[in-house]
Amino acid sequence: MVTPKWTKRSLLGIQHLTGDEISYLLDISGEYRKAKTNGNFPSGCLEGKTIVNLFLEPSTRTRVAFELAAKGLQADVITIAEKSSSLTKGESLRDTARNIQALGADGIILRHSSPGAAQFLDNIVDVPVINAGDGAHEHPSQALLDLFTLREKLGSLKGKKVTILGDILFSRVARSNIWGLLKMGAKVTLAGPSTLVPKKMEELGLTVTYNLKKAVSNTDAIMLLRIQHERQTQTHFPSLTEYSKMFGLREGDSQPDSRTIILHPGPINRGVEIDSTLADSPQSVILDQVTNGVSVRMAILDACCSSTY
Amino acid sequence: MVTPKWTKRSLLGIQHLTGDEISYLLDISGEYRKAKTNGNFPSGCLEGKTIVNLFLEPSTRTRVAFELAAKGLQADVITIAEKSSSLTKGESLRDTARNIQALGADGIILRHSSPGAAQFLDNIVDVPVINAGDGAHEHPSQALLDLFTLREKLGSLKGKKVTILGDILFSRVARSNIWGLLKMGAKVTLAGPSTLVPKKMEELGLTVTYNLKKAVSNTDAIMLLRIQHERQTQTHFPSLTEYSKMFGLREGDSQPDSRTIILHPGPINRGVEIDSTLADSPQSVILDQVTNGVSVRMAILDACCSSTY
Amino acid sequence: MVTPKWTKRSLLGIQHLTGDEISYLLDISGEYRKAKTNGNFPSGCLEGKTIVNLFLEPSTRTRVAFELAAKGLQADVITIAEKSSSLTKGESLRDTARNIQALGADGIILRHSSPGAAQFLDNIVDVPVINAGDGAHEHPSQALLDLFTLREKLGSLKGKKVTILGDILFSRVARSNIWGLLKMGAKVTLAGPSTLVPKKMEELGLTVTYNLKKAVSNTDAIMLLRIQHERQTQTHFPSLTEYSKMFGLREGDSQPDSRTIILHPGPINRGVEIDSTLADSPQSVILDQVTNGVSVRMAILDACCSSTY
Repeated sequence: MVTPKWTKRSLLGIQHLTGDEISYLLDISGEYRKAKTNGNFPSGCLEGKTIVNLFLEPSTRTRVAFELAAKGLQADVITIAEKSSSLTKGESLRDTARNIQALGADGIILRHSSPGAAQFLDNIVDVPVINAGDGAHEHPSQALLDLFTLREKLGSLKGKKVTILGDILFSRVARSNIWGLLKMGAKVTLAGPSTLVPKKMEELGLTVTYNLKKAVSNTDAIMLLRIQHERQTQTHFPSLTEYSKMFGLREGDSQPDSRTIILHPGPINRGVEIDSTLADSPQSVILDQVTNGVSVRMAILDACCSSTY
Repeated sequence: MVTPKWTKRSLLGIQHLTGDEISYLLDISGEYRKAKTNGNFPSGCLEGKTIVNLFLEPSTRTRVAFELAAKGLQADVITIAEKSSSLTKGESLRDTARNIQALGADGIILRHSSPGAAQFLDNIVDVPVINAGDGAHEHPSQALLDLFTLREKLGSLKGKKVTILGDILFSRVARSNIWGLLKMGAKVTLAGPSTLVPKKMEELGLTVTYNLKKAVSNTDAIMLLRIQHERQTQTHFPSLTEYSKMFGLREGDSQPDSRTIILHPGPINRGVEIDSTLADSPQSVILDQVTNGVSVRMAILDACCSSTY
Repeated sequence: MVTPKWTKRSLLGIQHLTGDEISYLLDISGEYRKAKTNGNFPSGCLEGKTIVNLFLEPSTRTRVAFELAAKGLQADVITIAEKSSSLTKGESLRDTARNIQALGADGIILRHSSPGAAQFLDNIVDVPVINAGDGAHEHPSQALLDLFTLREKLGSLKGKKVTILGDILFSRVARSNIWGLLKMGAKVTLAGPSTLVPKKMEELGLTVTYNLKKAVSNTDAIMLLRIQHERQTQTHFPSLTEYSKMFGLREGDSQPDSRTIILHPGPINRGVEIDSTLADSPQSVILDQVTNGVSVRMAILDACCSSTY
């Protein structure tokens, strides 16, 4: 490669990436995806390296995907998933991070309930930090796997119409995807209850609608979001039943065109955000997202942790 | 091998295996057992494969044995042991299973509190499913290690007398062993409090007795069962002391012949199912069972997960 | 090597080691430390071996360091960290240990809340036992990493002045370090509230003081100890604030000479045992201790588990 497209040590979010950097990560992801399909062993680019999975907020799905990705690259993986471990008890995140670096970590994957935690960590340690979700701020690996899946199914994202539907206000997935989609040239519509869509989003070049039918018609892809009970400090809609009735994707009235693909970061609340028939229909690429997620995280770890930085 | 004896993708129970299939698994187990004794490295038949330990019911013993077996065959092992992980929270077992397959699992080892859970999973995914205990239904790997240990100590099981003693009604270990012993040609006696022995078992060709002395005399092996508090919804006997007095194996009156071997799936309740002197006597093969359990699980994983199916 | 200096199977404490044995472990630690610095792969002396991390008392820091050390030597590592696992439920430590050995463990690292637990385990099993902390008794791997760090910074320990400051009465770290420092020829001063310093320690050749200024002046190194709330059954000092005021290391009055190095086993209670400025000053070698801890544990595992014993 004449002009390397990735020079960052850490992946903290999508907001500060360029379109070229995103494309670079998606290209590498594609190579790992193809190797997996062909049954080829992936590269051992992290052999002899130690990756620490520091999950200070509950998670299984993302943690396992990162663990699989790191092990696939031959790294040793240490998972610290306790909410209040003796490593962190009475200890600031700063001290925890410095200790993990002192133990010899070659990279830290962090999930934390506070927005900005990954950036904070990156200022403290000298090793790569991968943001695996920081509060309602960013979740870049999820956005990259979403972009990868969209590109795989739709081709170039330039000019493609993508609707993000649901609890946008509290969603780091939405936030990261909005940055990513705009940078890749997609046309983004945000839809959901007015209480769950942030204000003034049109200024970013986005379309906003509170009308489900309008949101799901004439679009290339619909990205559903999970209702995030845990990040809501007050009730923003009457009930799950009410939400489902107003904004759930269902066969019939609110059914998207058959050419429109449907994404969801999981786990699905069947019958709330989407009914089962649609979730399991050929339009749904939800399980493709899961499969792609491992390849995308291999690409992230490869880009950030395998190089000398 | 001219006629391969194993063509199944999954191991869901003992009930639907043939005697030949059981013998095949025990033979492979023997090869792994011998390799371990001789300090030989086991085969790397799962190298590059990912085995997921999905333990949705608490367990350490079986989980660790399967983890050791899979790692011994060079697999990457991911353990999902949380009772309510974000993978499973608000998600059906069906969605969890499909997600684990989408993540790239090459085999799933499942422990679940519901009878039939392993069969259910096997209908959903395309990869091998190993039943590591499903409610009070089956626990095939435990039965296979019991059969292996019996065969190791007694030779061919044909015509051998085996007494299963204890809480049979709630025991998946008993259920799997009954099928296995009958298929291997052993003569099986069930013994325990009348409240804990299922009715109409004689129809299967079994002998039933509620008399401890009769149960333990003139038999080649006694398989003790653990009192399963957690699977009893009502009290089936007055107290542990009472149980121990009536059905505990003790030196003296209820002592088996010195030639009779004693098995127990562990963990032992010393002084309840068996007194300490007998548990630690040369008749006891309880620790042999533990050691054999790793080899038997290597054989199971080898048979189900290393082949192209 | 003409005269091998290590013939023990297990590492249960520092009390029964000779100065030569300690030096031997520190020398091996130094080789692993150097290999890490130079980016060399460590030896695969535990390849094909299984090390069980049996942590029956909460810990992350020590557990992770041992896990990294064992994986660095190519061992398979099984961690059993649950406080009440089904392995241990209703089971004595004796039965748990025998089961772990039967599963095929080639070494057991034990943390336990009872003093003497490691020795007890060592009497039961035939494989090496590494004491990772047993109640208020010993914590030999911590003492060895402290001695390693002291030697790295000060050269030979013979005649060096070392002050141990804090909650000595309840500290296994202090207990192991006192033995180690004396065997290496250091001059040891114990300091802390009179309620937290054991009586009659002068008989061992130690100096005791209850005066902070005296304790921290004219010494080569100060080893701080963590206030061990969990091992105190009654209150031995009025409050953390009071402790900090009387015995906390602070800039100004109680500031040690700039040549004096400061150690702490972590995690630090900033503002209690030490203020932040000093903890982060060039005098502090706290993060060196963490880094050295992995190399020292590699040396321990190498010495005990890689040999035929």
